[in-house]
This record gives sequence, structure tokens and C-alpha cells, in this order.
Amino acid sequence: MKYLHTMVRVTDPVASLRFYCDALGLQVLSRREVPQGRFTLIFLAAPGDTEAQVELTHNWDPQPCAGGRNFGHLAYAVDDIYAACQRLMDHGVTLSRPPRDGHMAFVRSPDGISIELLQRGGGLPVAQPWAAMPNEGVW
Amino acid sequence: MKYLHTMVRVTDPVASLRFYCDALGLQVLSRREVPQGRFTLIFLAAPGDTEAQVELTHNWDPQPCAGGRNFGHLAYAVDDIYAACQRLMDHGVTLSRPPRDGHMAFVRSPDGISIELLQRGGGLPVAQPWAAMPNEGVW
Repeated sequence: MKYLHTMVRVTDPVASLRFYCDALGLQVLSRREVPQGRFTLIFLAAPGDTEAQVELTHNWDPQPCAGGRNFGHLAYAVDDIYAACQRLMDHGVTLSRPPRDGHMAFVRSPDGISIELLQRGGGLPVAQPWAAMPNEGVW
Repeated sequence: MKYLHTMVRVTDPVASLRFYCDALGLQVLSRREVPQGRFTLIFLAAPGDTEAQVELTHNWDPQPCAGGRNFGHLAYAVDDIYAACQRLMDHGVTLSRPPRDGHMAFVRSPDGISIELLQRGGGLPVAQPWAAMPNEGVW
């Protein structure tokens, strides 16, 4: 038995790829348009970690895509949590939970999927401006 | 950057472990009670695939745990999709989408998390009683 992917639905593929790839750092592995089902599938993974994937499903006809409470978040380890958060901010992403402790941060995708970032190997030294940043919203 | 886990919230840890472990086949890697936060964390993974984990969060104080539409499902490859589905049924789990094609099935956790099972290496020969089973509900 082997983990393959977590699937999340997206309402705007362009905004979603900007978030998941440009801002978060995942890469597109494959993309498949399915006209008969009127949807597009995009498979993503962290560079060099292609076994554990995220599947984005975009239904061409608008559907409600609100979040619920049974799903919590996707979690990734990163080499430099401050660099990762800076890149997210540079792309206009709000840090719901900034890495005040040098260890953990949370952001949300355009469709409200919560993403947890954890500093690989523990934590970085506490540093400004991160240490002084308040939480924004929930995550 | 490396995938760590998908976190889902659970309202009943006993029923959830029966589903995720006894019926689905994941194993408990670790369990942590956090009295000061009044929650329990349970980390699961497929046997031999411990890098890609599922984190169950159980808040001791009841919270709404309904599902939304932005999260889709967790997907696992299995060695024998018929054996996997039989074990799920033996534990009282409804096959939302039975493996009629020998390739794909869907079930739901007690809290409505959708789980996709995919036959490793393609599909098994179409076989009864699976081929004649109707869908039940949505997945």
C-alpha cells in the first residue's frame, strides 16, 4: 500500500498555479484536460519528491468550493522557512501564522486549503521581522 | 522541500482508527496527547511507506467537523483492490464507488474524508460481485 496524492478542488487554475508553484515552490508533473468530463487535472509535487503528489481538480463549470472542517492541512518541510515565507509574501500570499518561532508557518491557497510549512531539522534562530508578525485569520 | 502529511480532523478516535487502520490498512506511527491544548495527534502511514503520513487531530471538546468541497480525497495504491475492498466491507465500510473496473474504488472515513484506492500497476480482471455493485452516495 502506498500513498499517491491528496486531491483538492480549485476554482481558478491560473491563480492556483501561481500559489502552489510560483509562491509555494511545487512543480507541475503533468496536466490532463478531460473535455468529456469538463475538468482539468494538474499533478504537482515538491522538486525531487515526486512520489507524494497534490492533484488539483478544476471543474470547468463553476461549482461551490468552500472549505469544511474535516480536512485540516497539507504539510511540507522546507530548507529555509524564512525564504519560503518571503517568497509567499512576494506573491501576495498572507501569512496566516508567520514563522515567529523559526519553525512553523501556515498559509492558505486561493480556495482556502491550509498549508503548513515546517523548518527541516528543527527551527531557525528567531529573527525579525518574523518574530513580531501577528497571526491573520485562521489556518 | 518535502511532503510530510495531510492532516484531517476526527471526532471519534476509536471509530477513526478502526477505519484508517483495521479497515483501510494504515499503521499508527506515533500518538501524542496534548492536555494543555486538549487534543490528541495520531500519525499514520501505509506499512513500509512511512514518509507520507496522515495526521489525525482529535479535539477533546466537540467541534463541528463537517466536510467542504475544496478538499477532494486522499489516494493510495493497493496491491489487490478486491482484497482491500473486502476488508473495508468486513469492517462495515460502505463502498461509495465499488471497484467495478478492477481499478478504482472510493470510500469515506467516519468524518466524511474521501479515500481513493487505485490498483497498483493498472487494473485487475473485472470480476463479480464487484462488477455489479452500484455506487452509494457521493465520494
